[in-house]
Amino acid sequence: MTHPTVKLNRVINDTVEKLVINTIRCLGADLTQEYTGGHPGTVMGAAAIGVALWRFVMRYNPKDPDWFNRDRFVLSAGHACLFQYIHLHLAGYDAWTADQLKSYHNPNFGMAAGHPEIEFPGIEVTTGPLGQGIANAVGLAIAAKNLAATYNKPGFNIVDNKIWCFTGDGCLQEGVGQEALSLAGHLRLDNFIIIYDDNQVTVDGSIANCFTDDSSAKIAANGFHIIEVQDGTNDLPAILEALDEAKTIEGKPVFVHVRTVIGYGSHRANSGAAHGQPLGVEEVEYVKSVFGFDPRVKCHIPDEVYEYFRPVIARGHEDEEQWKTLYMKYAEAYPAEYTDIQQRLTGNLPDGWRELLPSKSELPTVAQPTRKSSGIAVTTLVPKFKQFVAGSADLLESTFVSFPNQVEFQHPDTGFGDYSGRQIRYGIREFAMIGLANGISAYQNGMFIPICSTFFQFWLYAAPAARMSALQGLRIIGIGTHDSIGIGEDGPTHQPIALASFYRSLPNYNFIRPADAEECMGAWEIALDSPHTPSLFALSRQPVPLHKNSDRSKVKLGAYPIFSTSSDDCCPQLIIISSGSEVARSIQAAKRLGDELNLHVRVVSMPSQAHFDKQSYEYRDFVLGNGRALVVAIEAWSSHGWARYAHASLSMHTFGQSAPQTTLYDIFGFGVDNIVAKVKAWVDSKTVNGKVVLPRLGQFEELLLGHVDPRKH
Amino acid sequence: MTHPTVKLNRVINDTVEKLVINTIRCLGADLTQEYTGGHPGTVMGAAAIGVALWRFVMRYNPKDPDWFNRDRFVLSAGHACLFQYIHLHLAGYDAWTADQLKSYHNPNFGMAAGHPEIEFPGIEVTTGPLGQGIANAVGLAIAAKNLAATYNKPGFNIVDNKIWCFTGDGCLQEGVGQEALSLAGHLRLDNFIIIYDDNQVTVDGSIANCFTDDSSAKIAANGFHIIEVQDGTNDLPAILEALDEAKTIEGKPVFVHVRTVIGYGSHRANSGAAHGQPLGVEEVEYVKSVFGFDPRVKCHIPDEVYEYFRPVIARGHEDEEQWKTLYMKYAEAYPAEYTDIQQRLTGNLPDGWRELLPSKSELPTVAQPTRKSSGIAVTTLVPKFKQFVAGSADLLESTFVSFPNQVEFQHPDTGFGDYSGRQIRYGIREFAMIGLANGISAYQNGMFIPICSTFFQFWLYAAPAARMSALQGLRIIGIGTHDSIGIGEDGPTHQPIALASFYRSLPNYNFIRPADAEECMGAWEIALDSPHTPSLFALSRQPVPLHKNSDRSKVKLGAYPIFSTSSDDCCPQLIIISSGSEVARSIQAAKRLGDELNLHVRVVSMPSQAHFDKQSYEYRDFVLGNGRALVVAIEAWSSHGWARYAHASLSMHTFGQSAPQTTLYDIFGFGVDNIVAKVKAWVDSKTVNGKVVLPRLGQFEELLLGHVDPRKH
Repeated sequence: MTHPTVKLNRVINDTVEKLVINTIRCLGADLTQEYTGGHPGTVMGAAAIGVALWRFVMRYNPKDPDWFNRDRFVLSAGHACLFQYIHLHLAGYDAWTADQLKSYHNPNFGMAAGHPEIEFPGIEVTTGPLGQGIANAVGLAIAAKNLAATYNKPGFNIVDNKIWCFTGDGCLQEGVGQEALSLAGHLRLDNFIIIYDDNQVTVDGSIANCFTDDSSAKIAANGFHIIEVQDGTNDLPAILEALDEAKTIEGKPVFVHVRTVIGYGSHRANSGAAHGQPLGVEEVEYVKSVFGFDPRVKCHIPDEVYEYFRPVIARGHEDEEQWKTLYMKYAEAYPAEYTDIQQRLTGNLPDGWRELLPSKSELPTVAQPTRKSSGIAVTTLVPKFKQFVAGSADLLESTFVSFPNQVEFQHPDTGFGDYSGRQIRYGIREFAMIGLANGISAYQNGMFIPICSTFFQFWLYAAPAARMSALQGLRIIGIGTHDSIGIGEDGPTHQPIALASFYRSLPNYNFIRPADAEECMGAWEIALDSPHTPSLFALSRQPVPLHKNSDRSKVKLGAYPIFSTSSDDCCPQLIIISSGSEVARSIQAAKRLGDELNLHVRVVSMPSQAHFDKQSYEYRDFVLGNGRALVVAIEAWSSHGWARYAHASLSMHTFGQSAPQTTLYDIFGFGVDNIVAKVKAWVDSKTVNGKVVLPRLGQFEELLLGHVDPRKH
Repeated sequence: MTHPTVKLNRVINDTVEKLVINTIRCLGADLTQEYTGGHPGTVMGAAAIGVALWRFVMRYNPKDPDWFNRDRFVLSAGHACLFQYIHLHLAGYDAWTADQLKSYHNPNFGMAAGHPEIEFPGIEVTTGPLGQGIANAVGLAIAAKNLAATYNKPGFNIVDNKIWCFTGDGCLQEGVGQEALSLAGHLRLDNFIIIYDDNQVTVDGSIANCFTDDSSAKIAANGFHIIEVQDGTNDLPAILEALDEAKTIEGKPVFVHVRTVIGYGSHRANSGAAHGQPLGVEEVEYVKSVFGFDPRVKCHIPDEVYEYFRPVIARGHEDEEQWKTLYMKYAEAYPAEYTDIQQRLTGNLPDGWRELLPSKSELPTVAQPTRKSSGIAVTTLVPKFKQFVAGSADLLESTFVSFPNQVEFQHPDTGFGDYSGRQIRYGIREFAMIGLANGISAYQNGMFIPICSTFFQFWLYAAPAARMSALQGLRIIGIGTHDSIGIGEDGPTHQPIALASFYRSLPNYNFIRPADAEECMGAWEIALDSPHTPSLFALSRQPVPLHKNSDRSKVKLGAYPIFSTSSDDCCPQLIIISSGSEVARSIQAAKRLGDELNLHVRVVSMPSQAHFDKQSYEYRDFVLGNGRALVVAIEAWSSHGWARYAHASLSMHTFGQSAPQTTLYDIFGFGVDNIVAKVKAWVDSKTVNGKVVLPRLGQFEELLLGHVDPRKH
């Protein structure tokens, strides 16, 4: 039931095919030369694979690039983007004009970017950072399997597409690619087909220099079905046979190992010199003459080539029409499911989700870790909305992303769950987890909302994929628990110091560190209100109280006063800004400072710097004391970035240690006694003749002068 | 020639061995229970493997933990640290007293940290973040092979040790582990033996839930010799046979796949509940009774157990003495090599390296990329000093880390090089590259200095390992090229925006962005003057001029005035701080601003924020204009962190684009015209009645109000 409904004859005319394939090769050589840069080699070596895919094997409608049941194609080897762009043009995607092809490496900001970008028709995900495309494609395959298991009915295979991934050796060398392949094999995703363009060449030369895996054997050991093609450069029938076979395999993903010659037709064939730079004017002319083209004519596409691809349009149209007919019948037969799908395709949760979250008065009043408080949202929302797929890198329970009556996303034969399941066990593969989530999220109009968790420190492993979430505007909800030295005994390898600076600097990213259960609800609201922005919550291992004045509606302001020693909080003399688990310590210290110094002290909770920066000048100035207060930041991370808001900070200046968390907070200077003493001395030092003198630029102070390692001295 | 010179009888007494193994199990159960946390399961399941290693197979001297030719042991599954600590205690390491074992999860900051830490005897590298230990171990194996190939002579195998790595499934799931195994197989490192403690359990339960690779087949496909042990829990003779065989294999690394039962002896055996938490008081008592111990006595180690391990001390002593005798003969026979080794063991380069770097007047005066300028240091220093091993993640040429007459580090049969080579092709494996480099650097007293390169953006892939370099104080010299939108056509996937914030926040890390060739020399001097701190240079793809006032000796100050519109630079009214390739643009803009506004403008080059922060208050105040100047920062990265030094910034607020670099600098607001216009308007807005009013806290301004994507609007 997974074959295209409309088939085309496999081989039309050998002469024409040669012309088509050679035209594509010459285009690759011409476009890179014309715009002096880029990667000609793969286009020239893998042209026949492209023809097999776009002309024969893949099911899609070039006139409706977003057709729901289309096959997805992911170019994991993103630098070979011309390979994809040229085929999109030839296949008849309206937007992919010949002029657009010429925008490659050109200052005119066309669609032919140096790597494929999700914004453009026919591009499913943005690729380029190697290995991640494989993970994205596996994510797309998970999404398709989940939809099929959830919504297909007898006689109504409304989801039965395939996910194709094209990769070079680079993506197979990268660990994230290996992680994703291991998981795809485990999950037995037979809708996933990966084509390895094995050209034996890297930037630095022969892959024999650095990569001698038996890739077929290795990936077979992950649980893949393996198909090999000896001559992928020219043997189109063999490629077609392999890809046709791939589509029939059940119960396993498929690895199609195709040997090609990079830069085929040029003197640089089979060499690293064909990989990442134009061939040179003379060599391009030589290539064109080899293939029987006029060497002086650039970017020529004979009419026969367009003719050759033309049937794709009718086939795509017919495929989609047949599907639409089926889907309309489905709407009648299964109106609830149909409505559900249509609702999900809006990209929004149904109205009313916000009200499902417990109000502040319904939240536990006992102190509890924010990881646990965040879990309230998981258990409340995830079971109700099929949009959510929640998973973890082997830390489901301690990150609180498991939920009641969950079904695991697993192959049904395993006995652990089935493909309708929405609890995903990503394994100890943080990077692939977010790479997969990017694919799941990119599937169709944001109809999936992946929730992914690990310890906050291991969001560093995942960071290259989280960056791609942000770049693509994909809504991933990230849970990063055990977010500080508060993890305690696990020690410095597990205690993040610098990581928040990265996520705070990342464009289009909601990095939020809630101070208590109420702020956790606010964080979830922000995440769900951001259809095109990923989020990451940094959450505590250790318990924190529910603060009297915490307010979920103010989390989106980035920062707000949460405590004051004065009933009239208009004119604080000292402001302590803090976040997360350190807010409670700051409030305790503020109380004592207010008493002991007879000062008006305000505590500001700042769960999100990025949100605060977007507020009006007046609001920011108000929160920071209208230029009349000394401001100190208290956070158990690096001080980097705090000078924007504070004159001084208590921060972490070294890595952490292995000890119980209360001990660590004390020895690193975050004990309430220490805070009070340090801040008191600092305020004194800024007071001249009873008047406070605000520090000036460059005088940002680190109140903790450096922790002495108790073991080493 | 690689066997221990001193052998012990393999099996002494079955009864005693049972007592020994069960004692270790009970210790694991007791210590985790006593200090309420940690990982008992592996100690209990893998005790027999530990006995095989420390009692029989590994060559080391517990009384001289740093003996040059010792075998190295890496616990990649770092959470199972008690497994290692207990054996170090039993083997007779003086520092590892019984009291130290009890420092596990204790607030007393003993040596038994929650994960093994390099500072302590018997610990070769700090592990914990999964997968990285495998990479570290492969790095140690590379170091040993390189030393052997460089210094061993006929009859003088002064380096012939083995590198042992103990891993669980977590490290095999992690991509970095897979990357390292792939490279170890390629390099045919037959001194590397990895033992897989296959207990079929993860934190979240059975690994059948998420990891069903055929690991032996997969790793065989990497080029490993595979040995399997069916009962690694109790069959000590079988383990010994396997490990003995492993030591004899030539031309391939060895994967020893050992099946064990996690938590053996408890009711939680074979379950996730045995992994990461104490068993509970009653269960621990039960375990002790099962093994014939008094349930009420904690942490008991019978004398017979100590007796059993005692021969290890004599053997280790004798081994080392024999080696010392050999080494002294070697010193006579090969005095030059001996002197070279001894010099390297000081951890310093020989005097005179600094003078080898070209002086400023000898540097090219033509504009060139800083990546190329940095390459001058590589080609000057690397060939001369065997300390250096220089490699790249498939970007040797474009990152300028290749050097003249280099020999590649390769197995000699490949024809590409041999093990004495110091040019390493890490493949497209950035994370493993730095993980390996950590192992190389940790080998012995800093006798190796790894140089590692990739595009700066892909230092995000490597970041979890770079963090471990910093935590361990390992001198890695990192080269991160194409460091901004200046990479141009490759587009936003390759253009770093947020990454510098991470490296600037990392403790014990030299993150340096030199502005020209002269500052590149200063960056290299800092790196080489920092024996216990890793460095990373962010370098440009595009050419930059050699600045008139650039000064290598001032790079270590972090920042210094590099240009002024006034011959007397005492009292600037406007200061532009910049770094790297943006310094040239800043100087151009300063010249025009000085002319057009009749202002005294200073440009400050700030190659290293961390170094600047360490300078005296007076120096910092001087550089930043003594509180009398408006200060603006110009850098094509996120503005995060700049408020510490500047009142405003021109920064990147979005991801980049694909276009030629000059176009990008223009559209993102870094064209000189734009800089002049923006800064002029900003200065005007701060001028009231002809007097400048300095902005106050929280008024940090982003002069670029947001780039409009030219494609999307």
